[in-house]
Amino acid sequence: MAQAAPVAVGKRTKRLDAPEKLTGQERFTGDLRLPGRLIARPVGSAYAHARITGIDTAPALAIPGVVAVLTAADLPIATRDDGSPGENPLPTDEATYAGQPVALVLAETEAAAEDGVAAVEVDYEPLDAVIAIDRAMDPDGPRVRLIETASHDDDEAGMHNADAAQEAEGEQEDLPPNVSNSVHFSRGDVAAGFAAADKSVELTFTSQTVHQGYIETQACLAAPDPLGNITVYTSTQALFHTRTKVAETIGVPLHRVNVIAMPVGGGFGGKFGLIEPIVAAAAVAVGRPVLLQYNRMEDFLTANPAPGCRIRLKVGAKADGTITALDGEMVFQAGSVAGSPLQIAAILMGGYYRFPNLEIRGYEVMTNRTKSGAYRAPGAQQGSLAIESVMDELARELGMDPLALRLHNCVVEGDQRPNGAAWPRIGLKETLEALQKHPRWQGRAESKARGRGVGIAVGGWPGGVEPATAVCRLDADGKLTVVLGSVDLNGTNTTFAQIAAEQFGMGAEDIQVSTASTDAAPYAGATGGSKVTYTVGPAVHKAAADARQQILGIAAQHLEAAVEDLELADGVVRVKGVPTASVSLQQIAGMSMTFGGKYEPVFGRGSTAITESAPGFAVHLAEVSVDSLTGETTVHHYVAAQDVGYAINPSAVEGQIHGGVAQGIGWALYEGMAYDDDAQLLTASLMDYTIPKADMIPPIETVLVHVPSEHGPYGAKGVGEPPAIPGAATVANAIRDATGVRVTDIPIKPEVLARALLADAAD
Amino acid sequence: MAQAAPVAVGKRTKRLDAPEKLTGQERFTGDLRLPGRLIARPVGSAYAHARITGIDTAPALAIPGVVAVLTAADLPIATRDDGSPGENPLPTDEATYAGQPVALVLAETEAAAEDGVAAVEVDYEPLDAVIAIDRAMDPDGPRVRLIETASHDDDEAGMHNADAAQEAEGEQEDLPPNVSNSVHFSRGDVAAGFAAADKSVELTFTSQTVHQGYIETQACLAAPDPLGNITVYTSTQALFHTRTKVAETIGVPLHRVNVIAMPVGGGFGGKFGLIEPIVAAAAVAVGRPVLLQYNRMEDFLTANPAPGCRIRLKVGAKADGTITALDGEMVFQAGSVAGSPLQIAAILMGGYYRFPNLEIRGYEVMTNRTKSGAYRAPGAQQGSLAIESVMDELARELGMDPLALRLHNCVVEGDQRPNGAAWPRIGLKETLEALQKHPRWQGRAESKARGRGVGIAVGGWPGGVEPATAVCRLDADGKLTVVLGSVDLNGTNTTFAQIAAEQFGMGAEDIQVSTASTDAAPYAGATGGSKVTYTVGPAVHKAAADARQQILGIAAQHLEAAVEDLELADGVVRVKGVPTASVSLQQIAGMSMTFGGKYEPVFGRGSTAITESAPGFAVHLAEVSVDSLTGETTVHHYVAAQDVGYAINPSAVEGQIHGGVAQGIGWALYEGMAYDDDAQLLTASLMDYTIPKADMIPPIETVLVHVPSEHGPYGAKGVGEPPAIPGAATVANAIRDATGVRVTDIPIKPEVLARALLADAAD
Repeated sequence: MAQAAPVAVGKRTKRLDAPEKLTGQERFTGDLRLPGRLIARPVGSAYAHARITGIDTAPALAIPGVVAVLTAADLPIATRDDGSPGENPLPTDEATYAGQPVALVLAETEAAAEDGVAAVEVDYEPLDAVIAIDRAMDPDGPRVRLIETASHDDDEAGMHNADAAQEAEGEQEDLPPNVSNSVHFSRGDVAAGFAAADKSVELTFTSQTVHQGYIETQACLAAPDPLGNITVYTSTQALFHTRTKVAETIGVPLHRVNVIAMPVGGGFGGKFGLIEPIVAAAAVAVGRPVLLQYNRMEDFLTANPAPGCRIRLKVGAKADGTITALDGEMVFQAGSVAGSPLQIAAILMGGYYRFPNLEIRGYEVMTNRTKSGAYRAPGAQQGSLAIESVMDELARELGMDPLALRLHNCVVEGDQRPNGAAWPRIGLKETLEALQKHPRWQGRAESKARGRGVGIAVGGWPGGVEPATAVCRLDADGKLTVVLGSVDLNGTNTTFAQIAAEQFGMGAEDIQVSTASTDAAPYAGATGGSKVTYTVGPAVHKAAADARQQILGIAAQHLEAAVEDLELADGVVRVKGVPTASVSLQQIAGMSMTFGGKYEPVFGRGSTAITESAPGFAVHLAEVSVDSLTGETTVHHYVAAQDVGYAINPSAVEGQIHGGVAQGIGWALYEGMAYDDDAQLLTASLMDYTIPKADMIPPIETVLVHVPSEHGPYGAKGVGEPPAIPGAATVANAIRDATGVRVTDIPIKPEVLARALLADAAD
Repeated sequence: MAQAAPVAVGKRTKRLDAPEKLTGQERFTGDLRLPGRLIARPVGSAYAHARITGIDTAPALAIPGVVAVLTAADLPIATRDDGSPGENPLPTDEATYAGQPVALVLAETEAAAEDGVAAVEVDYEPLDAVIAIDRAMDPDGPRVRLIETASHDDDEAGMHNADAAQEAEGEQEDLPPNVSNSVHFSRGDVAAGFAAADKSVELTFTSQTVHQGYIETQACLAAPDPLGNITVYTSTQALFHTRTKVAETIGVPLHRVNVIAMPVGGGFGGKFGLIEPIVAAAAVAVGRPVLLQYNRMEDFLTANPAPGCRIRLKVGAKADGTITALDGEMVFQAGSVAGSPLQIAAILMGGYYRFPNLEIRGYEVMTNRTKSGAYRAPGAQQGSLAIESVMDELARELGMDPLALRLHNCVVEGDQRPNGAAWPRIGLKETLEALQKHPRWQGRAESKARGRGVGIAVGGWPGGVEPATAVCRLDADGKLTVVLGSVDLNGTNTTFAQIAAEQFGMGAEDIQVSTASTDAAPYAGATGGSKVTYTVGPAVHKAAADARQQILGIAAQHLEAAVEDLELADGVVRVKGVPTASVSLQQIAGMSMTFGGKYEPVFGRGSTAITESAPGFAVHLAEVSVDSLTGETTVHHYVAAQDVGYAINPSAVEGQIHGGVAQGIGWALYEGMAYDDDAQLLTASLMDYTIPKADMIPPIETVLVHVPSEHGPYGAKGVGEPPAIPGAATVANAIRDATGVRVTDIPIKPEVLARALLADAAD
């Protein structure tokens, strides 16, 4: 779809929504006021596991301003088609994590709601809680929940990557009670593979539960009307999915729920319709608008962070670097509801390189904490930490350049993933080569000489696909409006404006992009899985091309010329070579959108159902130093090379990469939710849980690699997920390079690293 | 497009929006609350014509709760491209009608706003005002306005009928100062025509200024944001037109204005974007949401009623009833801004019958009252009163049955209108024939014997056309949503649900119809001119057919069958003859609107640009009696025959006819805005201005005639306007039949009729 001289795509373009964001004028969900609006606050379980034996709401109801205290029985929950009760957002008699909402206080003011929460008296019978992986896996250990819950919920994992949608084949093991899912991938003869290896490395890694770290906490305002309709204003990544969840929960037809996409103050996978069902049910219960916006502690306690994980991984290779075998085992520490990115983690861990013999077993174990959710590249950070650390160590064992080892083994088009799916054309090799040429890689010896270390790591993401429709409409002023059902998280609407503008030979600023509510929007899936530009973008392209054809068709009739003889630029259709024969888009609008008009309104439509994803690969480099006394790591330089296919808006692509790098450094050095032995969260505020601040992030150089995708607009691929993946392994490998110490537990805490340095020095 | 056995169209279907309307749950514009919302009230001019020499806002601003008092200078009015100031909704130094808003008080409460209005001190220098037609026409009489205003505003007339869009040809007369427009239609030799006539009748008619009588007064809430965007919630018939008017007034790009169509509590032509510009400008001026809802007096004083009119009309015919000539002159009494349905009135007055020789001169004269607006069939009531009364009288002169005289002369396809435009295929003759067979016409002698009179009259409407687009989208639950940009005034959304449902073999209740805001809606014109079902309906039909084809295409792939072998009904696509091979619409939704889905979302689009209108004709019959002492007329029976082409929802069509008849009886007997000699309105409340109550309206029988239109959905024609046209002439002719007295001034007041009866008896 590339054109000779693009006028809009490929240009650095300011976000169309920058003014409201930069001036603080944006109105988020929590800013919305509606007459009669109530504030909701959850009553959180005091225990990580307990029977709820009674809830006394009377003291709370006595507080002025408290309007209602809702328990599970008070919510209008739909009955399923089979007669069983539907999923209730509040528990009926068992709390399975600390802070779990067991009741909801609705009050006229925030203060009254807070007072109400304090006054609700819940009687608990405490039960054994479990948070540690080994204890949770123990068949004789405590059960995470006594009452069976609904089966494995993989809806959301399914929204991120195509591989997860494929069921793991093969035998099902006899699993301990808390183990809620398992995968097994096998290829060739692993024992023979290791026998043929000259060197092998085996390491065990852990990562913690990590919060998405969005600045705007979960927020939803639901406004019911007396006829059974409900309007849901929400900070969501998934408009239509949220509509379905709300409708199913409260048991109304879909069309009675209208979901309005509010600006999202950070999502990163954490906002796929989490609190909307409870807010909607509460609003319906009392017949008034209800706003729930979590405070920071509630969000940490009850939202849906990335799961912790333990991975044992062994890789062997011949002396020339050719890998012979991989053997791995991973355990994901889910919350008290099943669901984790187990499968994709396994597929990526065994998917970046050619492993002729491979064995990966994976397990998901439930623990007494809030459910797991998607986190920008769910599962990829954990799996990549393991494989990229082991590859680094293996290169040292082999005495090879770690980048050369990767180049020697990296997958290319046609190579298989652990699940047997062949990679399509990908840019991993090209991205490795691009980084190989970078001065910071070439100059790594000088860095070393200055006491610093340089590490690299790969991150790959299979990419998602989902059908989508877009509309491109001519307006009376001769400008165009793109109407979508996708949520703009990070500037994709600006990218879409560029894609549409290109069709009309105008600037992106002349295109309005409107995310409609579910009542009127064309379908698009959730914003996630690095698929919005890749799948909605082509729909926009087709819609704009369709509108362009309609415009040319009208102009041809009006100018009595053939369509092939027309050119469109600067808002005017001209007959080539006949300067006087022209008609403006505004005139065309006037002839098609007016009483007695002769022409149909220009209303372009584009739909796509791309079924082949465009995997994206990033290769990162970090230069670090470690304070040998404190163990504190400083990241001095960071280079992020990434195959983006084509950068429609280079500024936006680079912005995505910058953000991903910052999050990766957070995983590497700072972020982890800590629980005590009773599964009580110790890090439920931003004072206790560290997300990187600006001064912790080094200058980031980006290297854009362009291996065009077949289906993406102008060859673009999704760029959201890959840059968030390699950070932990990149930093760990750089620390290894700087200090000789291999750290396998993230986040890499200074005290742990300091002790390791001392031990290393003592050796 | 007719099908063998319709499942949805042609069925009596309850309005989908009936529950909210009938239970009083509908939220109208005035019910909306927004934080910081201010209430606006206009300060009305005390004089019908005056110089404004000063406005002292200080006393009003001193009242607690009054936030601002805006005068013309305070409104943010755009400058035109040529540098001249744009149209200001407030006058700068001249008031040209009594009650004209000269300032706007904005206050926190209704009460404060009222107090503020009372406290604003306006200094006037009174000028001569003129309201009577003759005085206004007098070249030496007072000028309606001293300062020239913008040129003739025919935007709104243009939204109603295709004929008005054609400019009158020919010489322009030298017109008196207050005369703002003229038309002249001429055909053949009128003098020769009258010379060839055996009988002729000449009468002069007057009608008064008539208010549309909507129950919900003009209402608009405008909410600006600090970035220059504005959301306009309004009771409008014209979504996109309103957007343009607001954007032009306040000088922002179109896309910064989002117009949300609120339910309209009656429009009848009076709500084409009247108060939105001033409300939007006021809201922008103060940076807060502003609601203006007229009280009844303000609406009477300052809205846009139908203009009064005087018509002299002479028609001659041969003894056999063949008409030989028409000579007419009409003067429309516009408000202090030019604009009236002069042209269409002339075209219809000379358009129902074959007039070989014809001369019509028409003038529009400005007077010191509020501007004229469209009223359901603008101009048609006035023109039809004249021609249908004269035809009735001519039949008496000729000793002919008045229905037979009409049948003898009525136009059929190919006959010309006064402007030379040929009628397309029409159903006037068929409708006359249908009424001719009706028992109430056949039994008119018995009615006469009981002291009653029976009258008939014709009303015709050319119909409007405007391009339109509609969307038909499959939803996740297997139901469909039609998305539109047209406003539902009278149940058209239910009709559209039927049209769409027919395509899917389901009931209308499974189709959701959503009028989107201008940010996202496909284009449709104003709801008016009897064109919504006629022009948007086919767009819906095409969109649904498009969606159906997409559904069948997916089903064919999924079922591995040919599209021709499939049938769609009850939400399921089946392979004909293979009962086990089927896929539901819900399954198709699941395969096309889900992560990794293989098929494009079903998103049907239909656009139309019908350029040939489908004129509709009604023939009404009234049976009346007149109290000879009081002159009070009672309408005992009413029959309304109408060619509707095809009744997609017979209940809705009959409802339209019932409403039109009630309005026609209002014109005939009750409605007229009275002014004193100083142009002060005497009838500015519903205590003084009579709209018919239920007990004034007789049982109405409807006779639907089906002469299918070529372009309308299933042959449907617009039905909104025709039934509101013949009422006045029908009742006047029935009174003539009952009493022998010909009344030519409407409304027919009892005291006038009583005097005429006395005079007649004295003759």
